[in-house]
Parts: sequence; structure tokens; C-alpha cells
Amino acid sequence: MKAVRYYGPGDIRVDDIPEPSPGDKQIKIKVSVLCGSDLHSYFVLQAPVSPTLTTPHPTTQETLPVVMGHEFSGTIVELGKAVDTSKFSVGQKVVVEPLISCGKCGPCLSGTRNLCHQITFIGIGGWGGGLAEYTVTNENLVHVLPDNIPLDIGALIEPLAVSWHAMKISHFKPGSNVLIIGAGPVGLLLLKILKAEGASWIGVSEPAAARRETAIKLDASAVFNPLTEDVIAETVRATDGGADVVFDCAGIQASLDAALGAVRTQGNVVEVAIWEKNPVINILTLQTKEAILTASLAYDRRHAELLKVVAEGRIPNLEELITRKIALEDFVEKGIKALIAEKDTQIKILVHP
Amino acid sequence: MKAVRYYGPGDIRVDDIPEPSPGDKQIKIKVSVLCGSDLHSYFVLQAPVSPTLTTPHPTTQETLPVVMGHEFSGTIVELGKAVDTSKFSVGQKVVVEPLISCGKCGPCLSGTRNLCHQITFIGIGGWGGGLAEYTVTNENLVHVLPDNIPLDIGALIEPLAVSWHAMKISHFKPGSNVLIIGAGPVGLLLLKILKAEGASWIGVSEPAAARRETAIKLDASAVFNPLTEDVIAETVRATDGGADVVFDCAGIQASLDAALGAVRTQGNVVEVAIWEKNPVINILTLQTKEAILTASLAYDRRHAELLKVVAEGRIPNLEELITRKIALEDFVEKGIKALIAEKDTQIKILVHP
Repeated sequence: MKAVRYYGPGDIRVDDIPEPSPGDKQIKIKVSVLCGSDLHSYFVLQAPVSPTLTTPHPTTQETLPVVMGHEFSGTIVELGKAVDTSKFSVGQKVVVEPLISCGKCGPCLSGTRNLCHQITFIGIGGWGGGLAEYTVTNENLVHVLPDNIPLDIGALIEPLAVSWHAMKISHFKPGSNVLIIGAGPVGLLLLKILKAEGASWIGVSEPAAARRETAIKLDASAVFNPLTEDVIAETVRATDGGADVVFDCAGIQASLDAALGAVRTQGNVVEVAIWEKNPVINILTLQTKEAILTASLAYDRRHAELLKVVAEGRIPNLEELITRKIALEDFVEKGIKALIAEKDTQIKILVHP
Repeated sequence: MKAVRYYGPGDIRVDDIPEPSPGDKQIKIKVSVLCGSDLHSYFVLQAPVSPTLTTPHPTTQETLPVVMGHEFSGTIVELGKAVDTSKFSVGQKVVVEPLISCGKCGPCLSGTRNLCHQITFIGIGGWGGGLAEYTVTNENLVHVLPDNIPLDIGALIEPLAVSWHAMKISHFKPGSNVLIIGAGPVGLLLLKILKAEGASWIGVSEPAAARRETAIKLDASAVFNPLTEDVIAETVRATDGGADVVFDCAGIQASLDAALGAVRTQGNVVEVAIWEKNPVINILTLQTKEAILTASLAYDRRHAELLKVVAEGRIPNLEELITRKIALEDFVEKGIKALIAEKDTQIKILVHP
């Protein structure tokens, strides 16, 4: 079968590889939809989550190349012989939770597998991926889609789980005033979630005009251009003292500074972004506000609750976030870099293998 | 009367000033004991907490010089004519809560006066101070000492309140494993408090040998020299995965790095130190642990509960922390800088005016 494989930064190839067969506790899935817009992560992800061409990842035991794609939905085509048939059957629509943990370290044993010391992801560290016709996945990572969630929305569940987890571990509660810094996919998904969960006021700070337009369409209370507007002063004014929670989805020095400046006394700044360079922190601001700085990483046992919430219609119109649908051939031909160049105007691009 | 006044960094003089008279809602106190070892704060404190020779502090409306001394106890000698006589009477032993807040800003109005936008302290921003024979204080900042708390211990209540507040806003609970970084007065007072409150394990990291000795005497579970020992590895080993709470009482780059390294996943790092220079924060460590970074500032309505706790004997043997008692004359003659030079061997020096 055809599969898109990652050999290293900038080196992505379409290979012919054998169709996989499920092990005893594995499920074979025909991939229907892949969410293709977060593939720039391949340009920043390094060890420990990614193996190299010569050093296998300690959890997957695989070296590069690996099949790419960690946000996908599909249909069950075959069950391993020990799979729980009271839960799974051929023909079911499913979504894969791609987080791979070692199961042996302290965080794994205490039930926080997203903090595993040797964490990686399907589609990044090995164990197949969504950019292929078929993939096999351990049954404990497969979730059946409720009937009223189509496969296209299923492909959004993984990134939605990242934003959902950030909201759940934050101090957000219905009625909170919230500032979101950075209106990329994670920030915009947060915007939808926070509106659904009853935020009073949601400000969005984003330098790219196209993304600000999207935030307005998604009904943000206020949208700021941090290059020309004083986000801190505007947020303090709009919230009468500062945001209860600031989600930093940008991960740069200016976003951390703005977050600490815009949060209220004893408020909560949540780092959701993956940082490429460590910032300086203004400790005096943290201290004179007794602010609470936390960070969220991926998700931990969120898929089941999230699928229930989406099936109940509590986060409506998720299809608004799908900005383009393309075929796998186009995806490969156009090249991933070309799609990345459009990142300001695209939110979620769905690929149909 | 004689009073020690602060004119600016390094410029401290003994002046003859008029004996103060209490306003309607003020209490005149004969100062008995002053805690003199935290006076190095005068060398780091700047605006906004300190006025200058020409610019008055916005809350006290006073310019330099100000009478020094914010940690003191004494005896009531006169009541202003509108003071609540059901609570106060001449001859009572009292302790002063020196935190001055504006009463008008958002944090003040929401009941967190330690986060006042124009905070200062008696003995730093004006309104008298403990390094004088007499001082007058607004009645709402005066707390009557329970009969079984002597005046010497009363002079420790203010610094004890700083450590008590840090513990109260942290995630500490009985049974927690705790690392204290920096065994100055605040760190050692925390050690006593955390032992009293039922910590399972308390590690102390401190480069100064004399302070490490004190931490051992105060029954720390383990004491580390960060210059020669791997504090992170030792803490992770002793606690089987990392400390539940790390209190950073040092406030330097190395202490923040050690705190984030030594805390367990989803554990809490509390910044208690006053920083002189902003550090770089290792966001990846914060994130891969989903750790919680908070900071504490002074105290907020802690004196009443703390006096009750001390009176009940729940933090025993506080006199262990008094390492020297001297007269006011000696204090001035020897010079504050000379005392600061002994900071590694002295914890709390009591001055009897």
C-alpha cells in the first residue's frame, strides 16, 4: 500500500510498504480522513518524541522512517483474534487516540500517561500512522465514533482533545473571562470549547489578519492585533482588572509577557504551545499578582468524555474549522511545505486517502 | 526620641525626632523587640515599595527618610480617642502587621491587600517603624499577643507570617514531601512550619555550611549542598519521583532550575524569594510535568490565625531561631552592614531598643 513516511526534517517520501496485519489485541483500520494541517510539527519535533534513523524510540522500538499522521478517523476492517468483540466489530467508524506511553514509569503508573517519561505518538514515533491506506492500532487506543459524529469531525477529535485537556486542567469555569493568545488551530478550537462551556468574555490576540477574521467569525468577544494594539491594557479594561485565565497558544517571549501582564491577580496562565526556545519569565509580575502558571501537554483519558460531549452537540458547528478537503494525491503532490505556507488562512485541512 | 532612619541605599542615620502622638484610630506602642536580621532588604527594595527623598510613596504620602524596622513587638502605652477599647488597652503586649495597602485598587477591594497595586510596609514606606523608642500604628494593624507568647517570639511573627502564607497558598498538605531551596530565615521558618504541619520528608538545599548545620539542627530529613551534590537526583531518589512541593527561597537561576527539576509531575513550585533579576524558565520541563508554578507575596490576613497556632504550641521552640540578642546602641554602633556580613551564621537577631 501507499504510505507517506518521514525520514527526517524536510525529507518526506511516498513509499510502497506492506499492508499491515493486526496482532492479537490490535485493530486494522482503513483510514478515511486525516487532519493534515498540523504536520509542521514534524519540523519542530525532536527527541525524545521522535526516533532517529539509527536510534529507535525507546517505547515503540522503531527507527525512522515512520508513517506520518496522528489525527485521523477510519473504519474497522479486521480485528485481531483477542480483541474484545463486545466493544469492537468490523465496519465501525473509529477514531484513534495516538498517545503512546511506556506503561512503566512513575507518571504512567500513577495514571498520567501524557506525562510519560518516554512519551511519543502514533505517526511520530512509530506504530503506523494516518497517512496510509491502512493502519493497525492497539485496541486500547481505538474509540468508536458515536453514530451522529461523521468521520470528518472524527478527524478533529485529536486536536480538539488537546484544547479540551488544556481547558480541563486550567482554572476556567463557566462565567470566566479568558484571553487566548495565538489563533492557530489549538487556539481556535479552544475558542469554540470555551464558548460552549460558558465563558463570559473571550479575547483573542493574533498578529495574522486571516486568523483574526476567523476568530471574529467564531464569535470572539474581542480580537486584538498584538503588533499594533496594547493587548494587556485592552484586556484589563474589558475584564475590569485582568483575565481569569490566559491560554498561551503562541509560545514566544511576547506571548508569555502578554499573558502575565493580562491575567488578573491570582489568575491562571496556561501554556498550551510547544516552545522552541525557553523564555525569560517576569517573576516580579507573577509574584505581585500571585498568579498561577501551569502548562498542559496533549491529553490524558479525554477521548471518551470528549466524544460524549461532541455527540451531545455541546460543541456545535465543528465543521466551521474545516477549511479545505483534498485527496491524498494532492496532499503529496502539492507538498506539505506548500500547505504550511498557507497556515494563516487554513485551520484544518482534511485529507482523504 | 532616638530613631534609626533610612535615607537611601547605604545611608542610615540615628536621628532625634519628636515622639509621635496617636491619631484618633491609632495606638502608641513602646517598642520592646525588633527583629533586626532582615534589614538587608533595605539594600534591594526599590520603588514601588520605597519612596525616594523627593517622591512620596503614593499610599503613605511620605518621602525619605523613614524610620526603619518592620518586624517588631511592643507594649501599648496610649490609645487614640476613637480606638476600640473592647479590644485594646494600655499595657497589652502587641505585634504589628506592617503591610500597608491603598484600600482602593482592585486587589484591595477583592480582599487580597497583599497584592495591592501600591503596597508598602511600615518601616519601609513610612508610618513609623520599629527602630525607635515609640511608634504609632493604625489599630487595624495591631494584634494583641496571647498571654503565652513572649515579646521576643512576638517579634518573629511577621517573618513567620511570610512563610506561613507561602505554605497556605501552596499545594502542601500533611504527608507531602517537600524541598526547600535556600535556608535563610524564610526557608528555616518554613522548615519549622512544615514539620509542625506534618510533612513526610523535608529536604533542604543550601550552599552555606553554617545554614546547612542549622537545618540539620531543626531536623530536616536531608540537607544538600547544591555546589557539590545533585539536588535534583537526590530529591527524586528520596521521594520516589520528585517533591510534591518545592519552595524556592533563594531566587536565582540555579534555584528555579533545581525546583523545576526536583518537583514531581503535577507538583507545585512556589516562588517565595524576592528576585533581583528575571530568570529563564525551562518551559519544556514545566510542560512535560504539567507542573504548577506559583508565587507568594508577604501575607494576607494571616496574623490572627498564626497567633492562634503559635499560642496553641503547634510550632514549638521558635526561640531556636533567635541566634543573638543585642541592645539598640550595639545595633547602631556595630552597623547594619556588619550584621549582614554574619548572615550565614545568624538567623534572627533580636534588638531591644
